[in-house]
Amino acid sequence: MKLKVKTLKLVAGRPVAILHKNTADKLGLNIDDRISLSKNNKKIISVLDIATGILKEDEIATSNEIVKALKLRENEFLDINLAPHPESTGLIYKKLRCQPLNEKEIKKIISDIVKNALTEPEIAYFVSAIYKCGMSMREIEYLTKAIASTGRKLKLKGKIADKHSIGGIPGNRTTPIVVPICASAGLIIPKTSSRAITSAAGTADVIEAIARVEFSVPEIYKIIKKTNACIVWGGSLGLAPADDKIIQIERLLNLDPESQLVASILAKKLSVGSKYILIDIPYGISSKVTTRREALELKNKFEKLAKNFKINLKCVLTDGSQPIGNGIGPVLEIHDVLAVLRQTPDRPLDLEKKSLELSALLLEMTGKAKKKRGMELAKKILQSGEAFKKFQEIIKAQHGSLSNGKLKLGSYCEEIKASRNGKIIGINSKKINFLAQILGCPADKSAGIYLYKHKNSKISKNEILLAFYAESEEKLKEALKLYKKIKPIEIK
Amino acid sequence: MKLKVKTLKLVAGRPVAILHKNTADKLGLNIDDRISLSKNNKKIISVLDIATGILKEDEIATSNEIVKALKLRENEFLDINLAPHPESTGLIYKKLRCQPLNEKEIKKIISDIVKNALTEPEIAYFVSAIYKCGMSMREIEYLTKAIASTGRKLKLKGKIADKHSIGGIPGNRTTPIVVPICASAGLIIPKTSSRAITSAAGTADVIEAIARVEFSVPEIYKIIKKTNACIVWGGSLGLAPADDKIIQIERLLNLDPESQLVASILAKKLSVGSKYILIDIPYGISSKVTTRREALELKNKFEKLAKNFKINLKCVLTDGSQPIGNGIGPVLEIHDVLAVLRQTPDRPLDLEKKSLELSALLLEMTGKAKKKRGMELAKKILQSGEAFKKFQEIIKAQHGSLSNGKLKLGSYCEEIKASRNGKIIGINSKKINFLAQILGCPADKSAGIYLYKHKNSKISKNEILLAFYAESEEKLKEALKLYKKIKPIEIK
Repeated sequence: MKLKVKTLKLVAGRPVAILHKNTADKLGLNIDDRISLSKNNKKIISVLDIATGILKEDEIATSNEIVKALKLRENEFLDINLAPHPESTGLIYKKLRCQPLNEKEIKKIISDIVKNALTEPEIAYFVSAIYKCGMSMREIEYLTKAIASTGRKLKLKGKIADKHSIGGIPGNRTTPIVVPICASAGLIIPKTSSRAITSAAGTADVIEAIARVEFSVPEIYKIIKKTNACIVWGGSLGLAPADDKIIQIERLLNLDPESQLVASILAKKLSVGSKYILIDIPYGISSKVTTRREALELKNKFEKLAKNFKINLKCVLTDGSQPIGNGIGPVLEIHDVLAVLRQTPDRPLDLEKKSLELSALLLEMTGKAKKKRGMELAKKILQSGEAFKKFQEIIKAQHGSLSNGKLKLGSYCEEIKASRNGKIIGINSKKINFLAQILGCPADKSAGIYLYKHKNSKISKNEILLAFYAESEEKLKEALKLYKKIKPIEIK
Repeated sequence: MKLKVKTLKLVAGRPVAILHKNTADKLGLNIDDRISLSKNNKKIISVLDIATGILKEDEIATSNEIVKALKLRENEFLDINLAPHPESTGLIYKKLRCQPLNEKEIKKIISDIVKNALTEPEIAYFVSAIYKCGMSMREIEYLTKAIASTGRKLKLKGKIADKHSIGGIPGNRTTPIVVPICASAGLIIPKTSSRAITSAAGTADVIEAIARVEFSVPEIYKIIKKTNACIVWGGSLGLAPADDKIIQIERLLNLDPESQLVASILAKKLSVGSKYILIDIPYGISSKVTTRREALELKNKFEKLAKNFKINLKCVLTDGSQPIGNGIGPVLEIHDVLAVLRQTPDRPLDLEKKSLELSALLLEMTGKAKKKRGMELAKKILQSGEAFKKFQEIIKAQHGSLSNGKLKLGSYCEEIKASRNGKIIGINSKKINFLAQILGCPADKSAGIYLYKHKNSKISKNEILLAFYAESEEKLKEALKLYKKIKPIEIK
C-alpha cells in the first residue's frame, strides 16, 4: 500500500512510524506490529504506532530517523507492508538458553538489528544472552564478521594503523593525542570511535564538543587525504551499524559483555582496513577488567582473533586503578587534551605519559621508529608543537574550532571539599562514571567532573577535592545527592 | 516547569511525551532523558522525544497512555520535571549477576516499573535476570508481595474462589466453562485473566472478542454482585500493574520465567482476595512445563508460598501433550466454549472433560460439593443449561453479546490437507502457538487455527488437517510459509 509521507520533525531516538487508525484497521495491523517501509531500493522496518489526531487516512507520519534513512520528502509516496516476524527472536531465545549459534544464525540476528527488525527489548535480550552465556572464539569470530559485513568499508592507501582502548576509565582520552602524533609521523589513522558505553564519554562524544564527528564516507576520504587522520564517530559512516544499536542498549545497564566488546572493536578495524592495531587494556578494581588475569585472557582473545583475520595486533596492559587526567566529560576532557598538546605547565602528566607510551609502541609496530626509539620520536613530535598543529588541522578538516564558546563549562557548578585531613587511597572509576552520567554526560557536552586530586594525594580538611558541572540545576542536585550516598573517593 | 498539554490522539503502546527542541534545550534535556509529568497527586514518568514540527515551545505533546493515566484535557497545564535516574537499573544489574535481592530492592524495581521509570529494554534485562538466575522462595515471596502491593485490591464478600492455568497450551480455554459452573453453585469467582504470554490467546483476549474485559473497580463490584463472577482482564483494574508491563516484554521472546509466573499468579489472587485457588499445571514435551518432575517442583513452590499467604491452594497436574479443543485464537476458542456450554453434538469433548474435572475439584475444595461428588454436581449444572445461562449473564453484565457478527472468522482462510495416509503422533504446542501469533493472535480476534484432527487420529491423504484464519492476506501467507518450514504436526 502506498501512503503519503508526513514528516513529523520528531527525533525519537529510534524509527517511529504512525498510521491512521482506519488505515491500520483496513490493513489488519495493530500497535507494535512491525511494518516495512520502502523507497527505491532502501528499506527500513518500524514498529507501528496508531493515531487519529495528527494525520489523515492516506498518510503515514514518520520520525526523523526514518526520514534520514530513506531520504524522505514531505508528501512523497512511500510503500508500506507488514514486515515478516523476525526469525532472530527464536535465535536470541536459543542463545539465552546458552546454546551455541552458528555463522548463519549470528549473521541473521545482526542483520535483523541493522534492518531495525528487532525492537529495543529484543536487543536487550540478546545482550543479556551474550552477557550471561558468553561466546566461544568461533562465535566471536562469526559476530565480528557479521558486524563488519553488514556495514560499509573504507578503502585507504598507506600504512593504516589504529589504537583503541577497551574503555571504562573516566578521562582516559589518549586518542586525540596519539592520533596527531602518529599521523604527523606519516601513519594513516582513520580513527572511528564509539560513543560512551559504560563511561561518561567516548572519544566521539568528546570530539563532538569542538567539531563535527558525523560524516559520509566521501567526506572521510577527503579529511584523511588532507590530514592523514580523522577522529570521528563510526556510527554515521555505517561501518558497523549493528554495533551502534547494540551499544545504545548496553549503556542502559552499563553492560559491555566481553565477546561483544572484542567483536565490536575488531569489526570496526576490519571495516576501515587497519593493518596495525594497538589495544589498550586498562585493568583495576573498579575498571571494566578488574584483574591482571582477566586482562591477559582478553589479550589472548584479541590476539587469536587478529591472527584469523591476518591483522598485526598488539595488546598493552595499563593501569586502570583510577581515572586518567583531571577532566571527566566531553568539554572537560578537551581541556586536558589541549593542555597536553599545548604543553602548558598545568597539563595532566598521567595523560601525557600514557599517550606517549601508546604512540611510541604504535610507531615501533609500524616501523616508523626503530625498536626502543618510539618514545624519542613521539616526544619530539609532541614537544615541538607538531602534534598540536596536526590536531588543529584535523579539527579544522572536521569543521570544528577551538573557540572559547565551545570550551565553556556547564553553568551549574559546585565544588566539593574534603571533610577531613588524610590521603586519598581510592577513586572508584565506576562511581565517577555514573556520577558524570547523572550530571548529563555525554549528551550534555559541558557537564562533568573535574578531579583536583588523584590517588595517593595528601589532602587537608576543606581543600577542594573535585567540582561538578551541569547544564541543568536538577541534574547537579541529583548528582550531589548521589555523591553523598555512593562516596566515590576514599580518604584514610 | 508548566507546559500546555497537546493530546496527540496517538496510541504508542507506552507513554510518549514530546517537547519542543527549544524547550528541551532550555531545560538541558536530551532525547531519552526521563521526565516526570505530574497533575494533582498523580505522576507518570516518560522517556523524552524532541520535535520542532508538531508543537509550540510552551506545549508538551503526549500519547494516549499519558492522557489516560493523568486524565489530561487538551490545553490544560502540566508540571514537568527531570525524573531522577532510577536506582533500580543498578539492582537489575545486581540480579543479572545472580546476586539475591532483598525485599526492599525487589519492591523498588517493581515500583519503578509501575511508575514507568524503567524503559522496555531495562525491563527485558530484569526478565533475563530472573530467567537466567532464578529466584529463591524468599525472593518469589517478595516479588509476589511487591506486585500485589503496588496495585489495587478488591474487597468482596462470600466464598471467593479461583482457578488458574499456568498457560502455554493452545486452546486450553477451560475458564469460561469452569467459572459459570462454579458461580452457578454459589461460589464468588472474580476471575481476572491475563492476556497471552506465550500462547496464542489468553482468556482475557478470548472474552474480549465478545464482551468488554476492561472495567473499573466499581464496575467489577456491580458485575459480581449481579452474577457472582466476572471474566475480565486484570490490567485495567490496576490490580497488578507491574505484572502487566512485565508480561508485555516477556511475550517478545515467549519467555515466562518460573519465579515471575508464580509471583504473577499469586499476586493477582491476593489482590482479589481469593481464599480457594485451583492451579492447573499442564505438562508435556512442547508445553511450558515439559516433565512430570518439573510440574511437581512447580506445584511444590505454589503450595509453599500459598501457605505463607494463608491461602487454600491446590495444584492439579494435567495432560499438556497437545492442544485442547479444536479452535486456537480468540473467536475460534469462543466457538469451542459455546459448543460445550450449549452441549451441541460437535463439542470438543477433551475441553468439556477437563473443564468438568477442574470444576468438580473446586466445588469439593470449597465444600460446595461433598468429597467425590463434585463431578456429579458440575455435570448437572453444565447439562441442565444452567452454566450456559450463567455465562450469558456474565457476558451481558460485561456489555457483551453472542451476536453472529462477533463470532465471524477471519476472511482470509486456507485449509491444509494431509500429504499422506498415516497416524498423527504429535502436535507441537509451541509451534502451533507461534503460527497462531503469526496469523495475528491475539490482537486479531478472528484469526487463528482450527484443528480438525488430534493426536492419535488416523488420517488419509488429502484429508483436511487444519485451517488457518487471518485478517490480512500477508499474515496468512507468512503463516503458510512458516508452516511448511516448522512442521507442527507429525504424521507416521
